Amino acid sequence: MPAIKSLDARCFAVPLDEILTDAKHGDHSHFELITATVTLSDGTVGTGYTYTGGRGGRSILAMIEYDLAPFVLGRDGDDVEALYDAMQWHMHYVARGGIASFAISAVDIALWDARCKRLGKPLWQVAGGASDRCNAYFGGIDLNFPLPKLLDSIRGYLADGANGVKIKIGQPTLAEDVERIAAVRDLIGPEVAFMVDANYSMSVEQAIEAARAFEPFNLMWFEEPTIPDDYAGFGRIAEATGMPLAMGENLHTIHEFEYAFEQARLSFVQPDASNCGGITGWLRVADLSRQHGIPICSHGMQELHVSLVSAQPNAGWIELHSFPIDHYTTRPVVLQDHLAVAPGTPGIGVTFDWDKLEAAAEQEASRASACRA
Amino acid sequence: MPAIKSLDARCFAVPLDEILTDAKHGDHSHFELITATVTLSDGTVGTGYTYTGGRGGRSILAMIEYDLAPFVLGRDGDDVEALYDAMQWHMHYVARGGIASFAISAVDIALWDARCKRLGKPLWQVAGGASDRCNAYFGGIDLNFPLPKLLDSIRGYLADGANGVKIKIGQPTLAEDVERIAAVRDLIGPEVAFMVDANYSMSVEQAIEAARAFEPFNLMWFEEPTIPDDYAGFGRIAEATGMPLAMGENLHTIHEFEYAFEQARLSFVQPDASNCGGITGWLRVADLSRQHGIPICSHGMQELHVSLVSAQPNAGWIELHSFPIDHYTTRPVVLQDHLAVAPGTPGIGVTFDWDKLEAAAEQEASRASACRA
Ligand SMILES: [Mg+2]
Ligand SMILES: [Mg+2]
Repeated sequence: MPAIKSLDARCFAVPLDEILTDAKHGDHSHFELITATVTLSDGTVGTGYTYTGGRGGRSILAMIEYDLAPFVLGRDGDDVEALYDAMQWHMHYVARGGIASFAISAVDIALWDARCKRLGKPLWQVAGGASDRCNAYFGGIDLNFPLPKLLDSIRGYLADGANGVKIKIGQPTLAEDVERIAAVRDLIGPEVAFMVDANYSMSVEQAIEAARAFEPFNLMWFEEPTIPDDYAGFGRIAEATGMPLAMGENLHTIHEFEYAFEQARLSFVQPDASNCGGITGWLRVADLSRQHGIPICSHGMQELHVSLVSAQPNAGWIELHSFPIDHYTTRPVVLQDHLAVAPGTPGIGVTFDWDKLEAAAEQEASRASACRA
Repeated sequence: MPAIKSLDARCFAVPLDEILTDAKHGDHSHFELITATVTLSDGTVGTGYTYTGGRGGRSILAMIEYDLAPFVLGRDGDDVEALYDAMQWHMHYVARGGIASFAISAVDIALWDARCKRLGKPLWQVAGGASDRCNAYFGGIDLNFPLPKLLDSIRGYLADGANGVKIKIGQPTLAEDVERIAAVRDLIGPEVAFMVDANYSMSVEQAIEAARAFEPFNLMWFEEPTIPDDYAGFGRIAEATGMPLAMGENLHTIHEFEYAFEQARLSFVQPDASNCGGITGWLRVADLSRQHGIPICSHGMQELHVSLVSAQPNAGWIELHSFPIDHYTTRPVVLQDHLAVAPGTPGIGVTFDWDKLEAAAEQEASRASACRA
């Protein structure tokens, strides 16, 4: 057995080019990237990671360093699924979602990177093998963009090869949301897939009213209309309006996904391997999605999810998220004929440019201290 | 308004006198105590805290230091409930339970300590005022105790004034659990309240079989028979057996409690202010418990819960937990005529003996490094 010899974690605050805003998390000036690197006794090195919207990164780092590293050192690095379950139980009293899900995700992804490298295979082959490419859409964090800027942003997505786009909604009035949706549909034409995301800023009743107002625009889905905890509320919205619903980025445990599949009447599910238990956790959600006949999509970290989603027989769409983690890797996401193409190299295919990350973190540290001054 | 001028957090690993074991968390050699101290602009100082079973403390500390302190500094220290909601939304993407619930709890309790001191009143008066005393039972973490030692431990509780005792169950066979339960009931007689706690080590089917086997022993409740996520499973156990069920120590968000109240057919609910959002979060659960006609109990941190439970018109039993946090305060829990008596001093009535905590943490650091050597 290849024993785990070391587990080293780092936390980078990475600045965004501009302030990005959604309806519930407010302004994002930066994101946090937390990396976990395992070395096995045979010399194999695997790197995993998670990310946040700018808060909690140091807490994730502390859990990896103080709780998970001492726990996994010396254990069998090949026994990834057993280690995943063991980490969940080890942290259970302070876990069941939250920070622990992010911390365990980073470690699990590192172990998968090592697993795929030892097998000499790319992740998409090991994680299902259905295909090496999948549909992709650009997910804007653009609630604060005035309409002309919003449309410019959409034009940029189309120029980059998009055949799917998503915008944030949750303006002060429903009429403003409808105006923006109408303008975007007008711009992109009837063929491009179009989604909206309310980041749970609405009550069930408001969401029902909104879904009815959005009906003329042929949306592929309405994402997180209300709080992720209200599974039955999602179900009521879907039942009342027939609008296809999507969620998943805020569900962290398999139990939360089970409730969503059973009660929320989802048309698409969007687990994020960075916060639902890494690749092990994500694949368990993918299994559930097939049992429930729902296409599997993703949220964030497109450079990793391209392999996971492509590999599934019920692949939906990956989100090309506005946190550009892939720009800090040696292989930013590749689009061909509108499809995102998974890396073919052994491992998860995500290799960080550490120098670039360090430079970005320095830049963010100066920005943050300038803001405080 | 009294602005928050500073928020300082500390983390102590505190050794236990002996190894304590339950069915799902394994051995406990120590617990972690994380304190949060706020200073308001009028000079009022409030200290809150949370604790863990020995894992995750540094992660909680990091969240208070890096995320919550910068967020609350300068805000109105009187506006406790608004700050609570704001902290929950601020951390939402990495929260919805887990570490964030613990970190926010510590800060919220500190703000309540300051609130009660500014009012010049003890917590039990500010948090409801129904009474200054309540029923209390000793909760053993004693799964690993051989039967003679278990009975000695129960004798100790009775000598200390107990009229309620709880033991851990989850032995290799149900027959062993039944033997221990029968021996304890035989020892304590028919009048002393008796509870058992499986720490979710059973499937629903196993729990139904166990509840039927426990029927002759007049248990006050059967705690956490199965995983806390399976609300409907709790309901099936209660329906099939009529056994009174209790849970709460693993529920962190108000939504989780709502599901439990609606689906789990609980006879008692046991929120822990250290992990369900502090005093603000605990009181919201207490409100729900009244709407559902269920007595409100507690888990852990008896030196604080004595005030919260006593203050409620539907007070149940506080647990005198085996993590002796109160031994590190200036007023260990007081029992009179079997009842736990709330402190009468302004504030939450929990004043830490910092020198004793520091000495304990040093002792634990030596123990841990000796174990690693
Ligand atoms: Mg979203
Ligand atoms: Mg318990």
